[in-house]
Amino acid sequence: MPSLSRGSIDSADAWITLAHAVEPDDAAVGTLLARLGPQEVVERIDSGRTGLRHGEGLAARLSGFSVDRARDRAREIGGRILTRDDPEWPCTLHDLRERGPMALWAVGTADLRLLGLRSVSVVGARACTLYGEAIARGWSMDLASAGWAVVSGAAFGIDAAAHRGALTAGGLTVAVVAGGVDVPYPRAHAALLAGIADQGAVVSEVPPGEPVRRQRFLSRNRLIAAIGRATVVVEAAERSGTTATARAAAAMLRPVLAVPGPITSPMSAGCHRMVQDGTAILATDAADVLAAVDLSAAAHLMAAPDAGESSTSPRDRLADREARLLDAMPGRGWVDLAGLVRSSGLAARDVLTGTSLLAAGGWVTEGERGWTRTRVPPAP
Amino acid sequence: MPSLSRGSIDSADAWITLAHAVEPDDAAVGTLLARLGPQEVVERIDSGRTGLRHGEGLAARLSGFSVDRARDRAREIGGRILTRDDPEWPCTLHDLRERGPMALWAVGTADLRLLGLRSVSVVGARACTLYGEAIARGWSMDLASAGWAVVSGAAFGIDAAAHRGALTAGGLTVAVVAGGVDVPYPRAHAALLAGIADQGAVVSEVPPGEPVRRQRFLSRNRLIAAIGRATVVVEAAERSGTTATARAAAAMLRPVLAVPGPITSPMSAGCHRMVQDGTAILATDAADVLAAVDLSAAAHLMAAPDAGESSTSPRDRLADREARLLDAMPGRGWVDLAGLVRSSGLAARDVLTGTSLLAAGGWVTEGERGWTRTRVPPAP
Repeated sequence: MPSLSRGSIDSADAWITLAHAVEPDDAAVGTLLARLGPQEVVERIDSGRTGLRHGEGLAARLSGFSVDRARDRAREIGGRILTRDDPEWPCTLHDLRERGPMALWAVGTADLRLLGLRSVSVVGARACTLYGEAIARGWSMDLASAGWAVVSGAAFGIDAAAHRGALTAGGLTVAVVAGGVDVPYPRAHAALLAGIADQGAVVSEVPPGEPVRRQRFLSRNRLIAAIGRATVVVEAAERSGTTATARAAAAMLRPVLAVPGPITSPMSAGCHRMVQDGTAILATDAADVLAAVDLSAAAHLMAAPDAGESSTSPRDRLADREARLLDAMPGRGWVDLAGLVRSSGLAARDVLTGTSLLAAGGWVTEGERGWTRTRVPPAP
Repeated sequence: MPSLSRGSIDSADAWITLAHAVEPDDAAVGTLLARLGPQEVVERIDSGRTGLRHGEGLAARLSGFSVDRARDRAREIGGRILTRDDPEWPCTLHDLRERGPMALWAVGTADLRLLGLRSVSVVGARACTLYGEAIARGWSMDLASAGWAVVSGAAFGIDAAAHRGALTAGGLTVAVVAGGVDVPYPRAHAALLAGIADQGAVVSEVPPGEPVRRQRFLSRNRLIAAIGRATVVVEAAERSGTTATARAAAAMLRPVLAVPGPITSPMSAGCHRMVQDGTAILATDAADVLAAVDLSAAAHLMAAPDAGESSTSPRDRLADREARLLDAMPGRGWVDLAGLVRSSGLAARDVLTGTSLLAAGGWVTEGERGWTRTRVPPAP
C-alpha cells in the first residue's frame, strides 16, 4: 500500500517528487499534469488513482521517497534542483508544454535563465569528420565570444567540439546529459564535463545517480532542441538522432541552421536534406546563426521570466506596441486581425508583427480564428 | 548616305541583317524592335531614322551588307542561321522578350528546338576545384544519359567538364559561345568545340568571324540562362559571372540549383549565398536537377509560343500522351482520375504525369475534384 503520508506539498516539491517517479517525456503523465497539476498527480500516484497502466510502477518509485533527501543529495553533489516556478528555469523550456521536464538538476556556475535568452544549441554527429569538428569548435568560439551560451550534449564528435570551442573562448557552455548530472557519460568526457560545470553548467532532468538509457538520449535531445534559441546542425547523417533533434527544434518554430559540406560526405547529407526540405536554413558562418537568433530573440527577451526578487513583472518589460496589443486582447475568446486593429488602434502591419512577438513570448496563442490570450502567461 | 536599296525584305532576312548591326542585348534597339518590328527597324537604321545615339554606328555596320552573303558564309563554315520564326528556334529563348537574340548561328548536328524542351544549363567557375570539376562531369553524364542536353559556355573549368561529361555519356551538349561559332575560344578548347559540334551544337548570336569581347561574354551568359530549362551552378565565387547567369535564370523563373560544398571553399561561396537568398535551391545529385525540371518542363514544352507563320498550334506540339489526355477531357466540368483512366485508356500513372504536365502548361486546372479544362488555353 503506497504511503499517503506526504500530506500537502507545495508545487516545487511536487515537481521534484514527480521527477523521481516519471521517465522524461512521458506523454500520458504529461496529459494528466496539464489537467490536474503536479500536486494532484503526486497524490494520485501515491494513492494508486492515476488510471495509467504504469501507475503502479510510478508509485513503486516513490515508495520511501523524500523531497528533503533529494534536496540534500543535490547539495551533496554540489548541485541544485530547479522546477518550473523557479526564476532560473529557462523560459525556452515553456515551449515544450506538456512535454516539459518535471525538474532540472544543475551543477555549475551558470544561471540557467540566461539560456532562455542567449543560447544556441550546437549539435551533430558523434562520428563527425575533421571538417565538422573544426566548424563546431570555431563557430562555438564565435558564438561564445559574442555572449551566447553554447548548449550541447557532451557526446563524442560535434558535441565535444562545440563545448570545447566555447570553453576556449572563455564563454558559457551547458551540457544537457541523458543520465544524472553526477554520472559522467561518456566516461572519456569526465574531465570535459568537469570543465563545463566550472565554466557553465551540466544539466539533466533525471536525478543524480541515474544511468543513461537509450530512451533518455532521445528525450534529452528534445531538451537541447527546446533550450537553445536556435539549433545549429554542423554535421548529420540522414535520419540520425541529430536530424531528429533539429526537427524537434523546427517543430517549436525555432530557427534551425544547417552547415553545408561536400556532397560526397555522408556526414553532410542530413544537413543538405534539411535545407532541401525546409527544416533548416543554410549557414556558412556563425554570423548567419546570430542573424537568425537576433531576429527571434526579441520575443523571449520581452517575455523574460521575472528576475526573482526584482519588482518588475515580465509584462512591465514588454515593449510599448506589444503591451498595447496585449491590453487590447479580449479577456477570453478569440480576436481576429480586424478586431485587433480596431481595439488597439494600431496598423494591421504592427498588429501582425506584435502578435507574432507576443505569441513567441508565450503571451498569446495563434489559431485559425486569430489570437487568444494564453491561459498561463509567461511565469513571473 | 546609307543605302536604301535593301527594298522590302522578309522578317527572317531583317533579323539576320539586324544581327550584323546590333550588339547582343542592346536594350535601346530591343525596345524599338518591340514597337516597330524588325523590317521597320532595318529601314530606319538604313535611313538614319532610329532616333538612337548609336544609330550612325548601326548604319555603318550595314553599309554594303548582304543577307545572301551572310547565308553563304554560314554555309561555308558548315553552319546555319536561325531566326525567331524558325521552327528550330529554342522556345525557351522567347522568355528573353526584347532581350532575345536577333539570330543564332549554329554549327552541329543537334536540333536546337530540343534545347527548349530537354536541356539543362550547367555553369560554374573557370577556376574551379577538382571537387566541382568531378561534379560537373558526373552530373552532366547523368543528365545526358537521362536524355537531357547539357548547355554550357565551353570555358575552362566547370563549363568544359560539363561538356565533356555529356560527350562521354554519348549525350547531347551545346556550347553557347561569345564570339562567332567559327572562332575557337579559348584556343585550347578548339578540339573540345569540334567534338561538341560533332555530337551537339556550337551556337552564337554574333556572326561568324566575330571576336569575343568582354561585353559579349556577359550577353552570352543570358543566353545560357535562357536556353536551359534549369540552370545548375556547380561552383561559383560570390559576385561572379556565374552567379549573374544564375540570377538571370532565376529572374526568368527558371529553377536554379546550386551545389553545396565546403564552407571553407571560396568556389562554393556563391552557391551557398544563392541558396541563402532564395535564388537557388540546393541540389546534391543530378536527380535533384531532374526533379526540378520535370516539374517545370511541361509549360514550355507544350505552351510554346507559336512558330510565327508556321501552321502548327501549341496543341499540335503536345506530346502524344498529353494530346491524348487532352482529347479525353470533357468539354466542361471536372473529371477525376478514374474517369480519365477510363476515357483516355491510359494507365493511372500516365494520367497523373500527363495531367501534371498539362496543368503546368496551362491546358488544365487541378482541383479537389480532379481536373477541368482551363477556360483560356495557352496562347498560340
